[in-house]
Amino acid sequence: MTLADRWLLPDGVDEALPKQAAKIEHLRRTLLNLHENWGYQLVIPPLLEYLDSLLIGAGSDLDLETFKVIDQLSGRLMGIRADFTSQVARIDAHCLKHEGVQRLSYCGSVLRTTPAGLDGTRSPIQLGAELYGHNNIESDLEVLSLMLETLTVAGLSKLVLDVGHIDVVRGVMAASGLTEEQEQKLASLYRAKGLPELEAFVASLQIEEQAKQWLLALPRLCGGVEVLDKAEQALRDVSESVNKALSQIRVVVNAVSARFKSVGLHFDLSDMESYSYHTGLVFAAYVPGYGNAVARGGRYDFIGEVFGRSRPATGFSTDVKTLVSLADVRLEEHKKVLAPIASSEELWQAIQALRADGYIVVEQLEQTPDISEFDFQLSPDGDGWKLVSI
Amino acid sequence: MTLADRWLLPDGVDEALPKQAAKIEHLRRTLLNLHENWGYQLVIPPLLEYLDSLLIGAGSDLDLETFKVIDQLSGRLMGIRADFTSQVARIDAHCLKHEGVQRLSYCGSVLRTTPAGLDGTRSPIQLGAELYGHNNIESDLEVLSLMLETLTVAGLSKLVLDVGHIDVVRGVMAASGLTEEQEQKLASLYRAKGLPELEAFVASLQIEEQAKQWLLALPRLCGGVEVLDKAEQALRDVSESVNKALSQIRVVVNAVSARFKSVGLHFDLSDMESYSYHTGLVFAAYVPGYGNAVARGGRYDFIGEVFGRSRPATGFSTDVKTLVSLADVRLEEHKKVLAPIASSEELWQAIQALRADGYIVVEQLEQTPDISEFDFQLSPDGDGWKLVSI
Repeated sequence: MTLADRWLLPDGVDEALPKQAAKIEHLRRTLLNLHENWGYQLVIPPLLEYLDSLLIGAGSDLDLETFKVIDQLSGRLMGIRADFTSQVARIDAHCLKHEGVQRLSYCGSVLRTTPAGLDGTRSPIQLGAELYGHNNIESDLEVLSLMLETLTVAGLSKLVLDVGHIDVVRGVMAASGLTEEQEQKLASLYRAKGLPELEAFVASLQIEEQAKQWLLALPRLCGGVEVLDKAEQALRDVSESVNKALSQIRVVVNAVSARFKSVGLHFDLSDMESYSYHTGLVFAAYVPGYGNAVARGGRYDFIGEVFGRSRPATGFSTDVKTLVSLADVRLEEHKKVLAPIASSEELWQAIQALRADGYIVVEQLEQTPDISEFDFQLSPDGDGWKLVSI
Repeated sequence: MTLADRWLLPDGVDEALPKQAAKIEHLRRTLLNLHENWGYQLVIPPLLEYLDSLLIGAGSDLDLETFKVIDQLSGRLMGIRADFTSQVARIDAHCLKHEGVQRLSYCGSVLRTTPAGLDGTRSPIQLGAELYGHNNIESDLEVLSLMLETLTVAGLSKLVLDVGHIDVVRGVMAASGLTEEQEQKLASLYRAKGLPELEAFVASLQIEEQAKQWLLALPRLCGGVEVLDKAEQALRDVSESVNKALSQIRVVVNAVSARFKSVGLHFDLSDMESYSYHTGLVFAAYVPGYGNAVARGGRYDFIGEVFGRSRPATGFSTDVKTLVSLADVRLEEHKKVLAPIASSEELWQAIQALRADGYIVVEQLEQTPDISEFDFQLSPDGDGWKLVSI
């Protein structure tokens, strides 16, 4: 093995050196403080769990993304978490006996077997919040607002919010009377966004003409706020659940426009791509020049069911490392003091007092330190010590 | 699978619910701030790496402790870190071009295949500091002082510091002219602390009488400060390196007694148990009623050699979760406010202003919230809103 090999990190795995690490730590604290001020309590789920628990409610995607190891104590398969959601749902379902609304937040490393998205990371620092025990639009709006506030506080600007609702596609498919096989084919065509194939497929279906129009209308309901007007018109007669979904989107749009005036809005009502376990309102935030969503969330009721306690739930997550790379994080500056080696008790006390006052005090171990790094030197002053500017 | 199985975490793996999580986060921040004030810069090494890099300089113990996974991108074996030391040494050796003294700190999860120590954890939150580029006792003393300050700031009292030096055993063995095989046998007898077997083995050796006395004296050099006087007497004529090691211990003892007056001191000069990769002064801190060391450290020069840059190094580490379980961590209290759902822009602004002022403000999603949790209610007041005590 060559030296270069030893230095190499696996693809999609990175480390943070002091400058970047300080920014990550600063943002982590700022955002967890924000979540605390919104009433979200920090929990720390374990980095690994039995695979059965970890993949609860998750699709096969998450299974493929999860590194597996054997538990030498039990012989059972364990997984390193690739996502926090099912872990936090388990904590809500089992460990916390709260019957009412529960607000939880988290921040920590996750690992993925393959690089995700355009930045290709396999080791994000996931930060997020989850709200359990409330199944109406007010909690969706709270979590969505917290997500936008999180990104704003992180320093991101020119945010674009993408809003959708799982019940729109579901409702249209249900009202059209498709078989399960037809629904799956249709979903993959919506994902592929290939209109000619979609038109050919819909034409071949033995369903009512009205339903065919709905199915063809969906992928065209994509764009700015005007899309919502069009959708309310085009899908008016589909079903109660579709009307309810559209009116929930409307509530969110009105509130977000009032609360976050600079955030752009975008809709793609046939989007099913990224919301595998979701059940209601879904949303993602984007910034110009970055191809992936910077944060993503939505409703996922019933995930706690397998833990014996089905609870309505909504939440979002983001990656602190991505936020640091996109935002201009400013750090608090501490003054740096170069001190002689603390060979007397008086000098030790003087150094300790400065550190307690917030100074960074470094003992001079080297003969010729780089004094340009420092603001002050600690120098003898009669019986005591004083700071001298450098 | 039963419900109970799904709830179960693997042995030695735990999660932190809100109360404990808040304490862990608080202590993590406090201690990283302390390290920053001492001039130690945070780095964030990756959670997984190619196994070759991760196990550099480590013994077979660490290999056994490390969970392995296959990199699907390269086919190479990767490991989830079980320890930070070799990662931080790699960062110092390669990524930071600093020729002089480098001070680095870290905090993060590590995983172990088997439970360690009496508390049997496999998922500690390791926090530590490393000092590179200085090979004399002043840097040992700095790191040792930072370890004791870390434990003191964490709120531990009745600390006992165990101090040893690898060169004492090494020097005595070298001066006795033992074969490598004999040295290994002797080391295992010192570890087992079985005096009769040791005496029989030493009696069987074809070495000078003086050397036999040194070998038998070592395991008896165990106890309080008086041990140091005895050792200086009994091992006086062994070698220059043993005298230097003992005088380094003396320097440390004098400084620690002056700086940390309430810390007890203990010595075990034949201890080789827990310092596999160490090369000089070693130390560990204990508290009454807890069988494991709460923190451990020492010198480990040359670990960076395989990365192409051999650098003297000394450092220590501890487990934040252990510290939280042993210390009485007090949290800052934030006032909690129950607010109506923010249905108007004025109310939203009022809530946001309170959150910015450090209040925890929760929107009332439930019909009948548990108001005993709250300090204030946000109530209408003419055109505006005011806090009303609960």
